[in-house]
Amino acid sequence: MDREWVMATIEEIAKFSTGGPGITRLAFSDEDRRAGEYIQDLMGQAGLAVRRDAFGNIIGRLEGAMPGAPAVATGSHLDTVPEGGRYDGVVGVVGGLAAIRRLAGKEPLPHPLELIVFMAEESSRFGFATMGSKAMIGSANPSWAKAKDQAGDGFPAVLGRHGLDLTSVRAAVRGREEIKAFIELHIEQGPILERTEKTIGIVEAIAAPTRLKIVVDGMAGHSGSTPMDDRQDALVSAAMIILAVQEIALEQHHRGTVGTVGIIRNHPNVMNVIPGRVELGVDIRGVDHDSIIETIQDLKDAVSTIADGQETPVAIEVVTADKPVPMNGDIINAIETACRQFNIPYRLMNSGAGHDAMNMAAITATGMIFIPCRGGISHNPSEEAAPEDIMKGIDVLAATLEQLAR
Amino acid sequence: MDREWVMATIEEIAKFSTGGPGITRLAFSDEDRRAGEYIQDLMGQAGLAVRRDAFGNIIGRLEGAMPGAPAVATGSHLDTVPEGGRYDGVVGVVGGLAAIRRLAGKEPLPHPLELIVFMAEESSRFGFATMGSKAMIGSANPSWAKAKDQAGDGFPAVLGRHGLDLTSVRAAVRGREEIKAFIELHIEQGPILERTEKTIGIVEAIAAPTRLKIVVDGMAGHSGSTPMDDRQDALVSAAMIILAVQEIALEQHHRGTVGTVGIIRNHPNVMNVIPGRVELGVDIRGVDHDSIIETIQDLKDAVSTIADGQETPVAIEVVTADKPVPMNGDIINAIETACRQFNIPYRLMNSGAGHDAMNMAAITATGMIFIPCRGGISHNPSEEAAPEDIMKGIDVLAATLEQLAR
Repeated sequence: MDREWVMATIEEIAKFSTGGPGITRLAFSDEDRRAGEYIQDLMGQAGLAVRRDAFGNIIGRLEGAMPGAPAVATGSHLDTVPEGGRYDGVVGVVGGLAAIRRLAGKEPLPHPLELIVFMAEESSRFGFATMGSKAMIGSANPSWAKAKDQAGDGFPAVLGRHGLDLTSVRAAVRGREEIKAFIELHIEQGPILERTEKTIGIVEAIAAPTRLKIVVDGMAGHSGSTPMDDRQDALVSAAMIILAVQEIALEQHHRGTVGTVGIIRNHPNVMNVIPGRVELGVDIRGVDHDSIIETIQDLKDAVSTIADGQETPVAIEVVTADKPVPMNGDIINAIETACRQFNIPYRLMNSGAGHDAMNMAAITATGMIFIPCRGGISHNPSEEAAPEDIMKGIDVLAATLEQLAR
Repeated sequence: MDREWVMATIEEIAKFSTGGPGITRLAFSDEDRRAGEYIQDLMGQAGLAVRRDAFGNIIGRLEGAMPGAPAVATGSHLDTVPEGGRYDGVVGVVGGLAAIRRLAGKEPLPHPLELIVFMAEESSRFGFATMGSKAMIGSANPSWAKAKDQAGDGFPAVLGRHGLDLTSVRAAVRGREEIKAFIELHIEQGPILERTEKTIGIVEAIAAPTRLKIVVDGMAGHSGSTPMDDRQDALVSAAMIILAVQEIALEQHHRGTVGTVGIIRNHPNVMNVIPGRVELGVDIRGVDHDSIIETIQDLKDAVSTIADGQETPVAIEVVTADKPVPMNGDIINAIETACRQFNIPYRLMNSGAGHDAMNMAAITATGMIFIPCRGGISHNPSEEAAPEDIMKGIDVLAATLEQLAR
């Protein structure tokens, strides 16, 4: 029955999408708002007291038996990348609610339980990731005020349309004394669990992204009449940089570091003009800080060689540079205990993707439970998680929450 | 006085721009329409009878002494690429009018003279180049009906806003019997005249573009959690293709062939998703047909190797494949005679860029006169032509028109 409810709820949430392939439910879009309202209703039906904080994060709370005790919280996000899948984030929200529903049916635990739906986890719309959890821990970034989406809509204006005010976002901040622990259930978004035939991944550390904006300046010119040896083609230099990112990341890959050029903007991007200016967005992640530092240094060296050789000046701006975040040892042990209790095959692993848990770790003991996703594919319409794996994830999450709230 | 009028008119036309760096006067934009109206007024003031044909091409005519004789025509275009320069096209329109104004002040020549302003020479807005001259020679492309600009505006609707109807565009077609010769004055858009210290280039052949659309299919995935050795990154394959175009074109360069990737569209183009699909627009040009064929074959081979090696399927579509167009020998001789008459240093050369003259050659004896542009730079805000070179171009053009109309 529980399984049917979980899968039907995931199915319902998948309907909140702007259309096109897969699921598109960008942060603070209408679809995102409606998905939030839908889950708020379900939280109410499950007996949780629901509120939205000053950033729009949804917080559902089941009071405990011990007055004034800090909450044991779980949660994830509902927003997606463009043309993403139906499980990223959603599994942690629906699974978290399923786990709390189970515990709500038992004798009250001493500590309150909370389900948190964080707003704007994906950076796709405004260029900033895990905004909701950052707001909650008091790390709202002043430059959010200048953030715009691809349609040119400013972030403060978009918040305003949701009845929120960026200048009073500090009211969303929660203290260490309010939350005893935070556990996030999430699909792995990588192939490791599937390859090693494990059902649960217990996260030891979350890789933090370093993000670079690289701007190549070439010389726009006529594509027909400018001789090949007289060109400063910004796109040719950009192509060399894309391959340098790939090559350097492959060299560092045994240390768990990955590198991706996700964004390219070519200027003027018409058939008969040699590209005059190209902007690249580079994402570098790992759990080994030294490897990340080496990757960035190697990339800077490679870019400088390309810039000189091609006579196309290149500017590199470090947009974000966060450090890898270790998960709490006690929480790791609690999750491990739950896996053993159910006899579920598990492994300790790192998270290549960033998560709200990464921020929550700054204010409370934090852990993450991964379940496999087919082929490791995520941020893609074909993202898929097996119902039996989702249910095992919920079993482990519920048992962990129960241990911690006791 | 003539020079002042020419430079002031070029200056005035530069004001019709949507703003930003350089000149942006896209085909069939408001700015393009207003620039056309401005030149129509000047044509009227010079005593030309002005009309617009069924495609919006502006035709100004000075009658000759011999009734029913075919016209000797000159002309060029007023539309620009985005952030282009102030001389591309404009020199031929203003210079053509200046030449006809001079001849209008003399005893009437037997043949009529015409100034033609061709619409939509640049492919930047709708993806098709030299549309106005194609319409005039009866080569309107049926797929123009499906063309859209970047804002999603369909070409027929845009024409409609200019009072034109794509379905009656055949009314713009002119016959061989109407036009005796066509000469286009244009900036070189390349560095050869400047490098060889010549003031006039007499075009022997115009390179025709072959345009390819290349679509790379990869596998979108999470940029943090997908291992480097488990990726099918469409942008990495696209980067390899960009460098292959560059390398192959460099090999063919001694045969006058050039290759450019002017367009790249990355999908979904966000920081945290490995690119799943990339579209490239490739422009290959030359005057040596065998070299062009070899270039395309080499590129197809390279692309196929990249597609296999990266496990990213690639589709190549040939969008246009025109043959190089030779200019008329008698016209070349007439221009040469004019250069010698004024003792102006000239050279015979090819045009890497396409021009309306390329199409006009299908219905009449056609030639082109090039003047230098600084550094060979064109399609760029810093495009520049020296007033003395423009005036020498007009001297040669006027003398050539006079010879041919006599």
